Amino acid sequence: MKSYDDAVKTILEHVGPMEAEEKLLLKCIGQATSEDIHAGIDLPAADISGPDGYALRSADLKGADRDNPAVLRVIGTVRAGHVPRTSVRAGCAVRIMTGSVIPKGADCVVRFEDTDEPGDKNGPNRANPKEVRVYVAAAAGANIRPAGGTVRKGALVVPKGTVIGPMQVSALASIGKTQIRVIRRPVIAVIATGDELVNPGRPLPPAKVYNCNSAAIAALVVHYGGEPVVLGVARDNESSLSAKIQKGLTADAIITSGGVSKGDYDLVRLVVGEMGQVIFSRVKMAPGAAVAFGLIETSRGDGGNRSVPVFALSGPPTGCLVNLETLVRPALLKMRGLVSTEHPSVDAVSLNEFSRKLSMSVAKWTHLTQVEGEYLVTLNRAEKDGMLSSMATANSLTIIPEGSTIKEGERIAVLPLDWRSNQLHP
Amino acid sequence: MKSYDDAVKTILEHVGPMEAEEKLLLKCIGQATSEDIHAGIDLPAADISGPDGYALRSADLKGADRDNPAVLRVIGTVRAGHVPRTSVRAGCAVRIMTGSVIPKGADCVVRFEDTDEPGDKNGPNRANPKEVRVYVAAAAGANIRPAGGTVRKGALVVPKGTVIGPMQVSALASIGKTQIRVIRRPVIAVIATGDELVNPGRPLPPAKVYNCNSAAIAALVVHYGGEPVVLGVARDNESSLSAKIQKGLTADAIITSGGVSKGDYDLVRLVVGEMGQVIFSRVKMAPGAAVAFGLIETSRGDGGNRSVPVFALSGPPTGCLVNLETLVRPALLKMRGLVSTEHPSVDAVSLNEFSRKLSMSVAKWTHLTQVEGEYLVTLNRAEKDGMLSSMATANSLTIIPEGSTIKEGERIAVLPLDWRSNQLHP
Repeated sequence: MKSYDDAVKTILEHVGPMEAEEKLLLKCIGQATSEDIHAGIDLPAADISGPDGYALRSADLKGADRDNPAVLRVIGTVRAGHVPRTSVRAGCAVRIMTGSVIPKGADCVVRFEDTDEPGDKNGPNRANPKEVRVYVAAAAGANIRPAGGTVRKGALVVPKGTVIGPMQVSALASIGKTQIRVIRRPVIAVIATGDELVNPGRPLPPAKVYNCNSAAIAALVVHYGGEPVVLGVARDNESSLSAKIQKGLTADAIITSGGVSKGDYDLVRLVVGEMGQVIFSRVKMAPGAAVAFGLIETSRGDGGNRSVPVFALSGPPTGCLVNLETLVRPALLKMRGLVSTEHPSVDAVSLNEFSRKLSMSVAKWTHLTQVEGEYLVTLNRAEKDGMLSSMATANSLTIIPEGSTIKEGERIAVLPLDWRSNQLHP
Repeated sequence: MKSYDDAVKTILEHVGPMEAEEKLLLKCIGQATSEDIHAGIDLPAADISGPDGYALRSADLKGADRDNPAVLRVIGTVRAGHVPRTSVRAGCAVRIMTGSVIPKGADCVVRFEDTDEPGDKNGPNRANPKEVRVYVAAAAGANIRPAGGTVRKGALVVPKGTVIGPMQVSALASIGKTQIRVIRRPVIAVIATGDELVNPGRPLPPAKVYNCNSAAIAALVVHYGGEPVVLGVARDNESSLSAKIQKGLTADAIITSGGVSKGDYDLVRLVVGEMGQVIFSRVKMAPGAAVAFGLIETSRGDGGNRSVPVFALSGPPTGCLVNLETLVRPALLKMRGLVSTEHPSVDAVSLNEFSRKLSMSVAKWTHLTQVEGEYLVTLNRAEKDGMLSSMATANSLTIIPEGSTIKEGERIAVLPLDWRSNQLHP
């Protein structure tokens, strides 16, 4: 029986990143880059203005302040996207818009706010001023964003292994990228096992239960960036099971649920052992201790072989979900090319005690709230709302190490499940 | 000029959740439920066995232990999914598998581990035992999961406003749900503005820059669960801008970028004011202070009107991204029907100082790491790697309140951007 840490370590030794693919930038959201991406251009390409204001010569502003403004002749306007056609001579200023190229002769920009430009205008200055009063002195270079100041041609912009999100898209589009190379999403075959399973949507005969694991596994695979292929239910006999697993070998990995404990019809380890090898079986964590991990060799199409990881998860739904979050999640992240598979945690004050010293780690679906910056975690919501509702409203997982207890008010590490959507209100 | 808190509050007063839609469960991932969902069945439907083991009568085990095992006659097997056909009489036991219905006459289950069942078997017990030695006594009810113990018919399973993820899918499928009602994803029109913009993939003429905001806005809308519709670039004149905005009125909200500052060609507020009303303009936060929020009435198709929110964001890419994360994100979450729009935060030790007292809040794209449970945040990675790379590798946002400074080593609140993919290694 493996410790949890050992089990994760063993799994990660046997899975690796998928190959790279080249795709349109906006199709890559959530995928990790497969190589360093460097800038092919300077950004900005020329010296440009930071604010809206006046481009002028700093020498013309010596000693200027609100009581002694410098008065300069306005000789034109530079707009963003247009090459300036005017040069700035002594005593002159050019209206200049944010992002516009600095005209020749000018060595600084003064913001409209530091001139007599009306502060309350909405849109253009209809007065079309012929001269401007400047209320400040300025050093050469003031308010100018120099060419290459944001990024220099050749600089590393996005390192290998970075997940593409809004900021990466912005940075890459700004240097003109439309397609990039990312690690492709792993395709995961999903197989539920058990004579007792009926798919939701049908009437439930006596002694049967609804198959919820297929949908839950598919949802978790999506949640962590893989592509599930649901292969239906294998029945509790070797031929049904091996046929489904054979079908799953076209995928990058297989996840089964059920049939992996000590029962007379728990045939998954048997069949995986016959088709390949079982690497480990049983993990010291409850729920979901009945779990196994194996590998099956299959031909790669080019004459070589590849090894398909098989995650044989617990049948009971809470155990299956704990297996998914603790054992399958790190594998999925590694297959996606992410640099780290660590699960970020927060320190939270426990609102309950946990007094049983157990001989295995205990994983609990918990409810995390944040009140005035402080994290609080409810360990035992099940007792209040029933187990199913507790699971369906959990937003975090708490792993209590083997032999540990928790006192009410103690600070413990809690794993939030999703920053983007977590609702951390009481 | 609005404070950041005020700006968010005003925006939230003017947006509301989209209407509900009924969809297949697995198509609802990331969407929020539009109503409370209750169980229509008891789960489990009958008393079932927790472990694999023997169903028997607790009276037959009185005083049994390892030295004085109770020896019982094995009279059959109950498998999961099959209705038991045998009754358990005194002195008898039935092999029973996890999840199987408890046969008549039995009042408890003893795990295989507490009997003479071989511990190292892989799959079925080929010995087909005719009797069993039981090494423990057991109370009535032991290892039986009672009917309705997981959930009672009529109980609340998933409350309104819950985001559908793997655990919700599991819970709902287990009570037989195939379709549920969720709040539909908001459709967001995306308009970039500016004569200087060229779409990535084309050569860059002098004085032009690549349009990165359209892609960044689209990516953020996807990231936070909306559906972007990219409408291209409006040029810096009223007719181009009003034509694009008119087109955007078929969406649930419009996001523009650029043209909202004090320049001569900053026409967005002007045009929004003409087509509807500007609710506020400028927020006391840098970058991205030049931002406005407005509403435009449009006909709903059924004779009534609806109000389309317009987010007129900053043109410079970092300002645009700050506006998106701080002002658009809460609106998107509310439109999606989420209960809370608060951004979860963690306390992190600052690795840098921030000594300038500014008259507005400062938003910084920061790099958060977690080392042995402790969060550390780098505020000024830009100085090391250049601004673009710093943004492209940021995994968090830190908002420094107006007039505040930060000392090196001080604990500050940091907003992580994505628990699922954040890579919090150094």
